[in-house]
Amino acid sequence: MRIAVLGNGIVGNTIGTKLCELGHDVMMGSRSATNEKALKWKSTAGARADVGDFGAAAAFAEIVFNCTAGTGSMEALSMAGEQALDGKILVDVSNPLDFSKGFPPYLTVCNTDSLGEQIQRTFPSVKVVKTLNTVNTFIMVNPSLIAGEHDMFLCGNDEKAKAQVEEILRGWFGWTQVLDLGDITNARAMEMILPIWVRLYGKLGTPNFNIHVVK
Amino acid sequence: MRIAVLGNGIVGNTIGTKLCELGHDVMMGSRSATNEKALKWKSTAGARADVGDFGAAAAFAEIVFNCTAGTGSMEALSMAGEQALDGKILVDVSNPLDFSKGFPPYLTVCNTDSLGEQIQRTFPSVKVVKTLNTVNTFIMVNPSLIAGEHDMFLCGNDEKAKAQVEEILRGWFGWTQVLDLGDITNARAMEMILPIWVRLYGKLGTPNFNIHVVK
Repeated sequence: MRIAVLGNGIVGNTIGTKLCELGHDVMMGSRSATNEKALKWKSTAGARADVGDFGAAAAFAEIVFNCTAGTGSMEALSMAGEQALDGKILVDVSNPLDFSKGFPPYLTVCNTDSLGEQIQRTFPSVKVVKTLNTVNTFIMVNPSLIAGEHDMFLCGNDEKAKAQVEEILRGWFGWTQVLDLGDITNARAMEMILPIWVRLYGKLGTPNFNIHVVK
Repeated sequence: MRIAVLGNGIVGNTIGTKLCELGHDVMMGSRSATNEKALKWKSTAGARADVGDFGAAAAFAEIVFNCTAGTGSMEALSMAGEQALDGKILVDVSNPLDFSKGFPPYLTVCNTDSLGEQIQRTFPSVKVVKTLNTVNTFIMVNPSLIAGEHDMFLCGNDEKAKAQVEEILRGWFGWTQVLDLGDITNARAMEMILPIWVRLYGKLGTPNFNIHVVK
């Protein structure tokens, strides 16, 4: 499958590399097609890895992963352009965290709205599926790094898109427990997990943890 | 011990009854000393149960539980009065949830502030300890209702007060896993768990669940 990974940070690197390993053709999208971090990733990720600007990556892809920093996601997706994204699944793993005032970060949007919803409203023809934002990127693509049962949440407006993303989570990444919360408005609840996540990160001294819903 | 339970709803009822069963003298505080719901609770909770207005309950108590609805907590505590609360531990189990626009509810304060912090700022001499707000009231006083491991969070500015509340959680209510997140600013993270909690409640069809942090 042809997949775009928007963003050249640790999340884009990790997901991009994993998708290449799984045999997919991956284009990492950046502001510039000659972004040094993206080119460095391409040099290590094998023959299936390529780079381009946001628009080229989105146009190339059948499925798009938004791995940009949440505070830059709207701009990155605008640069990708509605036409290149039209009708495609956008797996939104980002969080609208503002680290400019130090740790712990704040959410730039929450409670009555979310980044996932903002993206869906701005690009109504895109099938936004929010998921993976509640764990560290190494856990995203390798949930077995955590011993025992733990859960991944997912939400979005398009049932077929959610089913396909759930299959990616289970079949490609190895998630065994995926909870579909409903439509994209549930992204606010998923993004509002981050305030406790960042504090647990500080307390536990490792980003390699997740939550398990226990009945 | 003499304990005040502010609030005569299901949370105040459940915690009040549990504390009476444990052999403590409990005064349920309401707007009025003749509140019908409070008097009904008194008639069923045994000889150690009494009722009063918010001020009488707070003045009577060595420890105060804030079990009022979050949207009414500041008013209730103001009615109790700073003098009656002075120097005491206030166990704040409330959540600032606004149900007026339907389900799921919104938080009336979050992200850069919290109800726990508002209470601490307004009553600086009170030792506010935020805890128990992330589970249903039946789980609060009986965590063994949930099979397997699951976690309770706690935060506050006063270390001795937190130690005493942790002993209440463990020794009186039976919690085995208590995570101290730090000072009262962490109340925002604990209260921001509620958006996912209310959605999981809707999805799971039961309020008897909790989260477990898994490494």
